[in-house]
Amino acid sequence: MSDLSYTKVDKKFRRLYRLEHASNILAWDEAVMMPNGGSEARIQSLTELELLRHEVLSSEELWNEILEAEVHRDSLGDEERASLKEIKRVALNAKAIEPDLVELKSIASRRCEQAWRSLRAENNWKDFLPLFEEVILRSREEAQQRSEAFRCGLYESLVELYDPGLGLEHVEKNFAKLRLELPPLIGQILERQSSWNFIPPQGPYPTAKQKDLGLEVMSILGFDFSRGRLDVSHHPFCGGVGEDVRMTTRYSEEDFTESLMGVVHETGHASYEQNRPKPWLELPVGAARGMALHESQSLLFEMQLGRSPEFLSFIAPKMKSYLDHPTHSSEFWQPSSLTKWFHRVEKGKIRTQADEATYPLHVILRFEIEKDLIEGRLEAREVPEIWNEKMRSYFGLNLSGDFRDGCMQDMHWPSGAFGYFPSYTLGAMMAAQFFGKMQAENPSLPEQVSRGDLSFIRTWLKQNIWNKASFASTEELVLRATGKDLGAEDFIAHLKRRYLS
Amino acid sequence: MSDLSYTKVDKKFRRLYRLEHASNILAWDEAVMMPNGGSEARIQSLTELELLRHEVLSSEELWNEILEAEVHRDSLGDEERASLKEIKRVALNAKAIEPDLVELKSIASRRCEQAWRSLRAENNWKDFLPLFEEVILRSREEAQQRSEAFRCGLYESLVELYDPGLGLEHVEKNFAKLRLELPPLIGQILERQSSWNFIPPQGPYPTAKQKDLGLEVMSILGFDFSRGRLDVSHHPFCGGVGEDVRMTTRYSEEDFTESLMGVVHETGHASYEQNRPKPWLELPVGAARGMALHESQSLLFEMQLGRSPEFLSFIAPKMKSYLDHPTHSSEFWQPSSLTKWFHRVEKGKIRTQADEATYPLHVILRFEIEKDLIEGRLEAREVPEIWNEKMRSYFGLNLSGDFRDGCMQDMHWPSGAFGYFPSYTLGAMMAAQFFGKMQAENPSLPEQVSRGDLSFIRTWLKQNIWNKASFASTEELVLRATGKDLGAEDFIAHLKRRYLS
Repeated sequence: MSDLSYTKVDKKFRRLYRLEHASNILAWDEAVMMPNGGSEARIQSLTELELLRHEVLSSEELWNEILEAEVHRDSLGDEERASLKEIKRVALNAKAIEPDLVELKSIASRRCEQAWRSLRAENNWKDFLPLFEEVILRSREEAQQRSEAFRCGLYESLVELYDPGLGLEHVEKNFAKLRLELPPLIGQILERQSSWNFIPPQGPYPTAKQKDLGLEVMSILGFDFSRGRLDVSHHPFCGGVGEDVRMTTRYSEEDFTESLMGVVHETGHASYEQNRPKPWLELPVGAARGMALHESQSLLFEMQLGRSPEFLSFIAPKMKSYLDHPTHSSEFWQPSSLTKWFHRVEKGKIRTQADEATYPLHVILRFEIEKDLIEGRLEAREVPEIWNEKMRSYFGLNLSGDFRDGCMQDMHWPSGAFGYFPSYTLGAMMAAQFFGKMQAENPSLPEQVSRGDLSFIRTWLKQNIWNKASFASTEELVLRATGKDLGAEDFIAHLKRRYLS
Repeated sequence: MSDLSYTKVDKKFRRLYRLEHASNILAWDEAVMMPNGGSEARIQSLTELELLRHEVLSSEELWNEILEAEVHRDSLGDEERASLKEIKRVALNAKAIEPDLVELKSIASRRCEQAWRSLRAENNWKDFLPLFEEVILRSREEAQQRSEAFRCGLYESLVELYDPGLGLEHVEKNFAKLRLELPPLIGQILERQSSWNFIPPQGPYPTAKQKDLGLEVMSILGFDFSRGRLDVSHHPFCGGVGEDVRMTTRYSEEDFTESLMGVVHETGHASYEQNRPKPWLELPVGAARGMALHESQSLLFEMQLGRSPEFLSFIAPKMKSYLDHPTHSSEFWQPSSLTKWFHRVEKGKIRTQADEATYPLHVILRFEIEKDLIEGRLEAREVPEIWNEKMRSYFGLNLSGDFRDGCMQDMHWPSGAFGYFPSYTLGAMMAAQFFGKMQAENPSLPEQVSRGDLSFIRTWLKQNIWNKASFASTEELVLRATGKDLGAEDFIAHLKRRYLS
């Protein structure tokens, strides 16, 4: 029988989850549905919900209940003990931050993010800067308070929020490796592809048809429409709650490939959320382990599976049936041409449109800048210059004067999500490691994928990742699932195999 | 200078408004966006928000602050004094109910309402009954607790929730009058219309075109799209918050008139919400005065204005340009034919489709049943029989076996909103009184309306109703606006003028 003090804490967290439900759906609504005039009231409402949660999480009452439950931890089962550990971690994270700062940061980042939507479109760095400076000020204060509470580095304390327990060590070690190995690899790929004959998409592709294709692909990938939906937003994301996952995408009539692969990507996130273990759904231990693992799911779906020649050949006839037009070249819809198009590597300006080979360099660029921003070695006003310098150095591109597709392109910084970017590349590494392991376990996988049979992949992920939620650390999950530590080797091997063999 | 204890209470209520914002948007999402699988989690989240609000509202701490502010009320301005009065009323209403009941009623009514959406479509009374019995149980408990706290009748205590201070007296006196006068009036109208040659709508009318027409009509009526939107739901409503009003409608491809007049109706509600006084928007005194006044705005827009020959002649060319089809008779689009169609009186089954002459009888039928249900003279299982009996008596219609378009047709009872129905007919009476006063003040009004110039109407409503929010009682607002007490005379005179002259 469970200890009573644990039961109390458990109940409190299930109630808190209901506030999280409200916040998540309201945040989705803000990005997808809300008219502009509603923004200030929404910011206040979301901030109020955050403060209420923080009030409970940082209370002495809860803390004493947690300590009491710990005293009786021997009376708990393994799962409840894991649950208590996560509960304590979440409470400590709340206690580390002053309520005033919770409010100030919430308001500053929500205001900046909302303004960013139109200011970015206008390439308007001047009006963006003061709002952005306020976000940086509050994020630095947050890093200060967190680093004091957890006795770690300033930037490290923010990374910890997105990938608990993983530490900056994995990031720095692997980023150093990628910074070294990727540029020559990209050079070889570009050299090889320079002789390829690409057939580009020939729009216009009506939005409604793209949406129908996206919905069918979501079904193929296993999305449960009784517990989620697909809509349109400025910046694609996967939000909502486990019981009601809200995916978004955006459509370009000239090129359907962005929305299609966007949908595949977000369905990876959605599958993780829709398959967390039911009895623990409302508790921290039932949450996704971290954002690196989350991105590993979306990148496994998009890069490992979605852009594989086998999956592309399976969906090629579906793409054609939704999107073909008498004036289009039929050669474009050949699996071999499509595969070439979806394997195109390019040194581009935009992270979200980047191929998997150049993507880590986009992340490393942001990682270097945001680390310096948070640790006070760089000021907001200096960001455009250092951004352009690094774009020149990593990609040979000149971006001066282009804020829109330069340092203003991502919503992460305006919304105060410093420390998130590394998760993308750690996720790409994990995705390669997971998919490599699946292929080793099941040699028929490519043939199954070419028939649209994804049951092996879904079962493997369910058993090794989705059902495991936060019952183990990221490192343990990776080790148990693949038999080895998290590293960049499989990712680099995957790039070589796909692009150079 | 304001008294400090008032300032404290004021601040607390502004924070509570942020929870109301969350609840209102989540409730809209539930009806418009949410997939079925999300319903249980949503019920829990909405209930949690209600409990949190109730906890603050019924706390001793708040109550003491209110009493303290009352002691110093002489230091407050008139508006703050009115605000304090409303704050006290809202707190008393919360204190009247036990928290356990708040939770039980919220869960019972939300579950019943969600199930009702599909059970109604299936005409499934059997599975609906146990859920409905639970709602009645909790509503009776609520009436018990409220009537004890306010020393009033059981049913009366629920009516008070929707129209504070108006009392059951207005309802019973005027309903008696209408029950007497309407049946012969309806007989005369039907007799007169029996010789009319109606040209009915000739669909199909594409949903997208109906929506475009609705959006244009909303603009004409003054809806502010920067602070609101129009969507589709099972049962049309106007929700959201003053800063972000969420209107819904539903479309039938065979007949566009339902969605069109639905949109006009809800725009009346929306205009009230969008024009409440800015500085008081977050406080009880800045809220709409009650549901009778709210319905007066929607019915003024729909019945008095929207179905007037002048307005119909102004929008006739717009209807035609969106919805005409080469196979349609051009005679249908003539203002005179349209007016006939929009003035058609019929003894029908469905309240929401009823004309303004028969509508009060639908309301009276429900009022009589729900009063007996709440006061224990009638049980849930007996509702279909008494419903059918009354439908025979009032309308001469036989509904036996038809639950769908019989006693299961409205969402009010499944969602526990007993005591709401009278507001519709009180609202219809007020609407006639307001519009009559406007016409007396401004003889050019019909000519202005026929040109689409609604500025006089909007200014009059803004000054007399919208800006007044809850700074006076319903009775005072009606008296000040029209120079006479609330009564059914203008409504009956309006019916005679429109349908019998």
